[in-house]
Amino acid sequence: MQPIICMDKNVISLSHGSGGLISRELVEGLFLKRFHNNALMDLEDASILNLPMEKIAFTTDSFVVNPIFFPGGDIGRLAVCGTVNDLSMMGAKPLYLSVGFIIEEGFLIEDLKKIVDSMGEAAEEAEVSIVCGDTKVVERNAADNIFINTAGIGVIPEDVDISVKNAVPGDVIIVNGNIGDHGIAVLSQRKGLHFKTYIKSDVAPLNGLTALMIQKTRNIHTMRDPTRGGLATTLKEIAIGSNVGIEIDEERIPVSEGVRKACELLGLDWLYLANEGKAVVVVPEEEGEQLIETMKRHPYGEGAKIIGRVVPNSPGIVTMRNAYGVRRVIEMLAGEQYPRIC
Amino acid sequence: MQPIICMDKNVISLSHGSGGLISRELVEGLFLKRFHNNALMDLEDASILNLPMEKIAFTTDSFVVNPIFFPGGDIGRLAVCGTVNDLSMMGAKPLYLSVGFIIEEGFLIEDLKKIVDSMGEAAEEAEVSIVCGDTKVVERNAADNIFINTAGIGVIPEDVDISVKNAVPGDVIIVNGNIGDHGIAVLSQRKGLHFKTYIKSDVAPLNGLTALMIQKTRNIHTMRDPTRGGLATTLKEIAIGSNVGIEIDEERIPVSEGVRKACELLGLDWLYLANEGKAVVVVPEEEGEQLIETMKRHPYGEGAKIIGRVVPNSPGIVTMRNAYGVRRVIEMLAGEQYPRIC
Repeated sequence: MQPIICMDKNVISLSHGSGGLISRELVEGLFLKRFHNNALMDLEDASILNLPMEKIAFTTDSFVVNPIFFPGGDIGRLAVCGTVNDLSMMGAKPLYLSVGFIIEEGFLIEDLKKIVDSMGEAAEEAEVSIVCGDTKVVERNAADNIFINTAGIGVIPEDVDISVKNAVPGDVIIVNGNIGDHGIAVLSQRKGLHFKTYIKSDVAPLNGLTALMIQKTRNIHTMRDPTRGGLATTLKEIAIGSNVGIEIDEERIPVSEGVRKACELLGLDWLYLANEGKAVVVVPEEEGEQLIETMKRHPYGEGAKIIGRVVPNSPGIVTMRNAYGVRRVIEMLAGEQYPRIC
Repeated sequence: MQPIICMDKNVISLSHGSGGLISRELVEGLFLKRFHNNALMDLEDASILNLPMEKIAFTTDSFVVNPIFFPGGDIGRLAVCGTVNDLSMMGAKPLYLSVGFIIEEGFLIEDLKKIVDSMGEAAEEAEVSIVCGDTKVVERNAADNIFINTAGIGVIPEDVDISVKNAVPGDVIIVNGNIGDHGIAVLSQRKGLHFKTYIKSDVAPLNGLTALMIQKTRNIHTMRDPTRGGLATTLKEIAIGSNVGIEIDEERIPVSEGVRKACELLGLDWLYLANEGKAVVVVPEEEGEQLIETMKRHPYGEGAKIIGRVVPNSPGIVTMRNAYGVRRVIEMLAGEQYPRIC
């Protein structure tokens, strides 16, 4: 047992999770100030939302990234963007988020403020409201610093039908930029590695980009963000979900020199590295180039490229052709490359 | 560092949270089987929901209860009921839940199955669908067994307006049964205490009961479930939220003999004990008795009683009169009575 320092105002204590007076002070003094909106201010048991009468999308994700601060972002920005992106991948306009904190006793209030600020900024960028929340505090060593869950609600325009089941032969596969940055940014921070090229996480809300894309064409068949498990796992999920074959070209996949070097050093395959600001987009070939032009007009789409195509043969199989024309089968991530990347 | 047992199929490994093949096996082999519904089966990044065009309620809660199995329930039942009840307290009909698991490496698959079963049963009882989810696995000692977040969506009939702000002088205050059972059930399990009377948690979904009540009258002003912080904290929240005074009578508050004895033994005040199947209901005095008759027709409302009233004087203040007519001021829980009760 570590000694418990009573009344230290700078750290989270078990009282902050009691549901009583000290909890209320934390909620009013920190969360409400940063996430201000009418639905949250009411402090009801549930928030009442105004939603247009369209299809509703609903998703959830927990974030356990270690370390909680990393080059290019932190667990707060990640928690907002991760859920915003899951909604965006369905063609939804994200509107409302919930947030659930699980905090270890003794966690620095200063660090919680930074995280809450970062969530507030990301929510503003994504134009979503954080409308309900919950805070639990557990004893020292019962959790590692802080875990955050976000759930999100969005609306899908009536004529949008984007699904992991909708890829068909003849489609091309697009990614919106460099692969692997998030994975390497977190791992390098964790291991105290310093690469010549400073690698920042790509963590970003993609709903602005996807809204532009949906405005351009209603023929996007599939979108998915290659987070845990990386590009390889996402492509395999699409191949299985749509019962199609997928062929990608290694040379076309955008990967920064820094990530390539870090992968060599660490013995990692960038195909399996996590991304937090990337989308895999499947669209009919005849619309591919035009869609890329549209994507390039958005800061998060500047690196958009066609990396492969959907084929009728070998349903459920993903293959990658390398610079020498040799084709190899790409499987899902088996086992764990590294835990707590998001 | 504990040695990591490779390939032990009976425990959760880091691979179960990788987002790759082993994750998929867990999702398909366990979660989809138990929570089957069309929205979840699609395995999309977000679930698409059909909602009637009414007011939408949205809420979230994380559950970190220790121990995870306790008399009368477990963390799974708690995670479903807690969120169902938060929606019910707004007069909403709960429809959809998300679930986010954070699991410690080495957790028994057998225990996870029990929890998932328990969530499935509770969801069936509450007639809600678990439509999206996420699983993260953290290393040994980075979390204590398992934490569960649920977020929930419900619809509120157009003419229902239940809020912590709506209590007015002249209202009576009702509870639907014995206070303190959940708190004592968890604490006794944790401390290995055995009381003469076996005390079970009251954890239950209250939406069936609240639906009956709303059918009976649209004049319910406030409902709130006295979970963490107990009855005292909830009454104080209502007094502050509605800017009214509240007077309760100690003798009228239903508390079982077992809970009274346990409180004496442990030096606890049952006013601050957590409940997970109780509602504090505020309704005009002239409708109180009739509403209680309605509540008694439901298994979770059999113990319904008027325990006090809303008064115009002393806004924001809660007082309790004891058997000798002495009145004392009731404050919110200050500090932490005991952590991880829910």
